Amino acid sequence: MRATVMYAAGDVRVETVPDARIVEPTDALVTVTRACICGSDLWPYNAMKPAEMGNRMGHEFIGLVEAVGPEVRTVKKGDLVVAPFAWSDGTCEFCRHGLQTSCLHGGWWGGTELDGGQGEAVRVPQADGTLVVLPVGPDHALMPSLLTLSDVMGTGHHAALAARVSSGKTVAVVGDGAVGLCGVIAARRLGAERIIMLGRHPDRIALARDFGATDVVSERGDAAIERVRELTGGLGAHSVLECVGHGEAMLTAVSIARPGGAVGRVGVPQETAIPHAQPTFYANITIAGGPAPVRAYIEELLPDVLEGRIQPGRVFDHVTNLDGVPDGYRAMNERRSIKVMIEF
Amino acid sequence: MRATVMYAAGDVRVETVPDARIVEPTDALVTVTRACICGSDLWPYNAMKPAEMGNRMGHEFIGLVEAVGPEVRTVKKGDLVVAPFAWSDGTCEFCRHGLQTSCLHGGWWGGTELDGGQGEAVRVPQADGTLVVLPVGPDHALMPSLLTLSDVMGTGHHAALAARVSSGKTVAVVGDGAVGLCGVIAARRLGAERIIMLGRHPDRIALARDFGATDVVSERGDAAIERVRELTGGLGAHSVLECVGHGEAMLTAVSIARPGGAVGRVGVPQETAIPHAQPTFYANITIAGGPAPVRAYIEELLPDVLEGRIQPGRVFDHVTNLDGVPDGYRAMNERRSIKVMIEF
Repeated sequence: MRATVMYAAGDVRVETVPDARIVEPTDALVTVTRACICGSDLWPYNAMKPAEMGNRMGHEFIGLVEAVGPEVRTVKKGDLVVAPFAWSDGTCEFCRHGLQTSCLHGGWWGGTELDGGQGEAVRVPQADGTLVVLPVGPDHALMPSLLTLSDVMGTGHHAALAARVSSGKTVAVVGDGAVGLCGVIAARRLGAERIIMLGRHPDRIALARDFGATDVVSERGDAAIERVRELTGGLGAHSVLECVGHGEAMLTAVSIARPGGAVGRVGVPQETAIPHAQPTFYANITIAGGPAPVRAYIEELLPDVLEGRIQPGRVFDHVTNLDGVPDGYRAMNERRSIKVMIEF
Repeated sequence: MRATVMYAAGDVRVETVPDARIVEPTDALVTVTRACICGSDLWPYNAMKPAEMGNRMGHEFIGLVEAVGPEVRTVKKGDLVVAPFAWSDGTCEFCRHGLQTSCLHGGWWGGTELDGGQGEAVRVPQADGTLVVLPVGPDHALMPSLLTLSDVMGTGHHAALAARVSSGKTVAVVGDGAVGLCGVIAARRLGAERIIMLGRHPDRIALARDFGATDVVSERGDAAIERVRELTGGLGAHSVLECVGHGEAMLTAVSIARPGGAVGRVGVPQETAIPHAQPTFYANITIAGGPAPVRAYIEELLPDVLEGRIQPGRVFDHVTNLDGVPDGYRAMNERRSIKVMIEF
């Protein structure tokens, strides 16, 4: 079969790899019908040291179950399924509490050992815990929005929950990528009264406004902090969604939260420490978040997608096929594309 | 009148200062009957640069109202009152939400402008918002426990709330000072099933056990982290109370929280950054806390103190008078005393 492999920063190839197959009795074999490229794929795309072996890429996909191992009970051949960006058994201490990204018997797609979503097929470990059956066919018009349930929509929702968004709150979103935009959707869905998007790209800002952003701050650094303060009567936002991960974004996020507020961080942190230990302490600002347990959120968000109340699939502004994946990485890295969908 | 003034690290004096008096119509004048020395007073006691002016000290006190300004409504001459460690108006955006330590018109005792609790009398700004009347006389046997409501008991309670202690949880407490010990009381009171105290001093450990600690970890650094993991089936604690503030304590705290757990920090941070940005992210560990809005907690905790269900006053192991305050600082700094009470 063919799949995407990254060998070094900037070096992404589509090549022939061993066919995916069932190994454990708890596995399913899924042929991928839709996948995508994630903003977090750009971290290694910019920093990976050259490796002979290469890493299989992709952690967001929808596909058809081709076969299941003898111990799989909840999915069967022919089911259309969506996979969260981490696989999990669904039964351990952490899964039972809805934190599937910390599953004691789970893990991450791709790398050197497992298949990734950016390929023709995937061996899915812990299929019962991991996969969610979709009640539609593989060419349904809502496929882009359904695909976001594998990561960005659930991640935006996690950021909003971690930042304690609720009815009437003022929310700020740091990062105008697909996760930040889904964070706007999530904040609106949870009842935020005011949603301030920090971003500069006209197409992303327009989409943010469509999704419910009420204010846009295009300044950066200290000027952005100052502007958010002006917009919030000098107090800052109750809830801040940090959807980038680099140091400056986190510094901005903790600086625009009001006393007693919370920062929900879902951008993969690129620094080893969280800044502003003292100002955040004196202001009782909570810092929460991490990899979203999107598996826990799929069932909650699915009805809103199926009934059209939220349209996170609009974050996809490029569609390609498997051969177009290397170009897709370039387009996202150069910020010509918000998010690239791959059709098989 | 006489009061405690700190001029430099190690240089604490009791001397004559201008009499406390009412300045604003919202002030009360309180003669102090009980006060104490706080673990946080030891930070400047070890680090203060020499200053000609000196800082008035003390932020925990009980006293009798001698007079009130014309706008004061809720306290009157003759009332016995307890003061939280921050004064606040009780009516601003943050006070209304129970975060009086961020009061828009509040502040902190002592320094160069205001009286401190370690003196004969205090001008109390925003008396209506700040003071809580006690329904007992000034020599009541419960006075030590009532005095802890001005800081350490409320601070331990805040750490427990920030760390999301609730029924059945496993809690770890970093720091065996008065706040850590009150954190044990608070965790027990909130229903923790297991309370692991990290500490080494036999007298403090004995008190922690009396207060409800079920396990004691006397190791330090990596060995302490390892031991907590062993005690928790490899998972870590649901809730960690960080009651120290220095870098190693915070590093221990974030390292012993289980995935999805929370660290409630109430020790004044001595570092500019929070360590382990990445491990805490991948494990979805929440970091919360700050200066406790003890004003919000006094009414909640007061019945438990008055009815003897909690006995936080047991943290006082030294009693002195105002002249003994410099010796009291030394005793606490050398860890010969957990906490010193001052009787007037």
